[in-house]
Amino acid sequence: MNAIDKLAELLKELPGVGPRQAKRFVYFLLMKNENYLRELSDLIPEIKKRVSSCQNCFRYFSKDESNGSLCKTCLDKNRSTKSLMIVSRDTDYEAVEKSNSFDGYYFVLGGILPVLEQDPQKFIRLNELRKVIEERKIAGLEEIILALNANPDGDFTADFLKKELSNTGLKITTLGRGLSTGTELEYSDKDTIGNALKNRN
Amino acid sequence: MNAIDKLAELLKELPGVGPRQAKRFVYFLLMKNENYLRELSDLIPEIKKRVSSCQNCFRYFSKDESNGSLCKTCLDKNRSTKSLMIVSRDTDYEAVEKSNSFDGYYFVLGGILPVLEQDPQKFIRLNELRKVIEERKIAGLEEIILALNANPDGDFTADFLKKELSNTGLKITTLGRGLSTGTELEYSDKDTIGNALKNRN
Amino acid sequence: MNAIDKLAELLKELPGVGPRQAKRFVYFLLMKNENYLRELSDLIPEIKKRVSSCQNCFRYFSKDESNGSLCKTCLDKNRSTKSLMIVSRDTDYEAVEKSNSFDGYYFVLGGILPVLEQDPQKFIRLNELRKVIEERKIAGLEEIILALNANPDGDFTADFLKKELSNTGLKITTLGRGLSTGTELEYSDKDTIGNALKNRN
Amino acid sequence: MNAIDKLAELLKELPGVGPRQAKRFVYFLLMKNENYLRELSDLIPEIKKRVSSCQNCFRYFSKDESNGSLCKTCLDKNRSTKSLMIVSRDTDYEAVEKSNSFDGYYFVLGGILPVLEQDPQKFIRLNELRKVIEERKIAGLEEIILALNANPDGDFTADFLKKELSNTGLKITTLGRGLSTGTELEYSDKDTIGNALKNRN
Repeated sequence: MNAIDKLAELLKELPGVGPRQAKRFVYFLLMKNENYLRELSDLIPEIKKRVSSCQNCFRYFSKDESNGSLCKTCLDKNRSTKSLMIVSRDTDYEAVEKSNSFDGYYFVLGGILPVLEQDPQKFIRLNELRKVIEERKIAGLEEIILALNANPDGDFTADFLKKELSNTGLKITTLGRGLSTGTELEYSDKDTIGNALKNRN
Repeated sequence: MNAIDKLAELLKELPGVGPRQAKRFVYFLLMKNENYLRELSDLIPEIKKRVSSCQNCFRYFSKDESNGSLCKTCLDKNRSTKSLMIVSRDTDYEAVEKSNSFDGYYFVLGGILPVLEQDPQKFIRLNELRKVIEERKIAGLEEIILALNANPDGDFTADFLKKELSNTGLKITTLGRGLSTGTELEYSDKDTIGNALKNRN
Repeated sequence: MNAIDKLAELLKELPGVGPRQAKRFVYFLLMKNENYLRELSDLIPEIKKRVSSCQNCFRYFSKDESNGSLCKTCLDKNRSTKSLMIVSRDTDYEAVEKSNSFDGYYFVLGGILPVLEQDPQKFIRLNELRKVIEERKIAGLEEIILALNANPDGDFTADFLKKELSNTGLKITTLGRGLSTGTELEYSDKDTIGNALKNRN
Repeated sequence: MNAIDKLAELLKELPGVGPRQAKRFVYFLLMKNENYLRELSDLIPEIKKRVSSCQNCFRYFSKDESNGSLCKTCLDKNRSTKSLMIVSRDTDYEAVEKSNSFDGYYFVLGGILPVLEQDPQKFIRLNELRKVIEERKIAGLEEIILALNANPDGDFTADFLKKELSNTGLKITTLGRGLSTGTELEYSDKDTIGNALKNRN
């Protein structure tokens, strides 16, 4: 395979990138200055060395941010030790942090459990989660918040975790269902209306 | 104006219909059989006579459905007298009824209060609502549920009604906010995440 | 069926209207003044009487526009007798007239021939077309322009008509294929690029 | 800036990539194996060395494909020397090649001339084009095909080049305008209908 096609093929693996956009990435790179190309190609193989996975919450963090094995958020003593929010991915963590609505700690599952999957550890960090919960219980953990997507895989994963973690003795909650911002009643499905009514306040 | 353009102009007033679709409606009617046209033109001027506005909840109902001044739902003795759901329009009533999640009674406001509007009675049935609430209180009403759209006008109307109805001594609730079916955390706005967290259960 | 549902069912037949929009049409009509309802219901059964189908081109026209059996366009002596444009529907005629790019006469087929259809007269005014062509030939007709949609049914109908009308001895053309306004080369399909190249000028 | 944000910032420069997708690219790279990262980071700085810009048509080509200063297409003796197609970008060349509808040679302008721009050479390879045309004239060139997008910038560039190249004595054509595949007459703009009619055949 020639160099243009080879690079396009590699870039096509990036999430959400099709063959045509990958080709456009290649032509873009061909027109960029050496400086940009050097920065990019220096950083890509380095990224794993310059980024750690937090030993507590398993999210990725830059070593510039924290030198040890724990991320900035896990090191923050001002957060509440009472609640642990379980999210699927780093991008979910980021969305919640940006909302400024949670001051407890996080745990990144690393994925979602597909409906009917038999081997959960292949998809989510179940053993790691159990260990973290035991440690956090000593520190005062009271509630586990399952913050997963409101879709079948998210629901399946939440149901699975509720059962798996029932023996922790902790309160286990899920994010409230109801009308999200901008929703019009007339166009809402039965579940959303039913949940909005059940969760009225 | 010629007959085609005149009919197109009338049909263009229907909600969500533009000039091009109105024209297509006219050509469609020109190709339909006399039977359809007669049924349609007989029913249109009759519709107001064959449909009543319920004296209790103010929604429209066919007289075929109920002969008196009250609609089938308001006549239903099996519903709970404890809660009254306030919706903006008949289509909202229909969406909630279809969800099978509510067994109390309804009140149709007839509109929504635009933000900063000074004369509420022009937009919503405020006086009628007060009267209905007084009557329903005698019958055991305990809670008023404001089931309005999750947008600025809906929120403004809900805030307005909460203040206006505070002297009723009743519990006043609004539909729960949170993740609606299908919502992904990563793409949710701050308010939705904040509400979903607050309303976790 | 009750009156609201009955009217919604009739309105649901209008092109492009679903059950929910039909219901909204009913509530809209219930809130409109008597005047509007009367105008609408008077005009609907009248529309067929106040509108004729032109005996030459078969498009619909208001009798306000022309008293006889021919429409304004067919009566216009300033148009060229050399070319006849064949369109599928009245809305196509309107789009071409609005473009101010054609000064010949029209013929409205009344439909499109579905691919593989055996009985063309059921879908398009084939016999009427033949008769009109014979008459127009005497008046100097030289070219038949098949102005049909650039999709499989349009192409099938054009191919069918080319064969059917080959014995007229007239020049038969179809609309030029190529880049339509706004088209970007990069996103164009093979046929469009091939046609644009063949039809370059 | 930390390593994650730095890499996201570099990736955000790729065409069509926003900050959120860039972040997702970073997390994707963090989870990829070393092999992929090495291949990618080895190829990026190399790409300029392994790809040449053809001295005739100025499109990019891999040196695996051709060793000299000319690309495979320019070296192909079976193509017609009579016509030269001028395209804006490499991706346009690819779209035309895939359509199998052209067997002449190409010239890649490298951009498009913005409407009202005073200094064309800053945006398109005008001097290079003149030189190539002089050489190709000796080899039998008869026609220049301006294959540009059917939008204002494309039209402006075509008009500009027609004037600039009028002294070459060559026939200069543009891609045919008309109905592109899938276009429905009813929804077409005036220009498209006018062009489709003018270019009928």
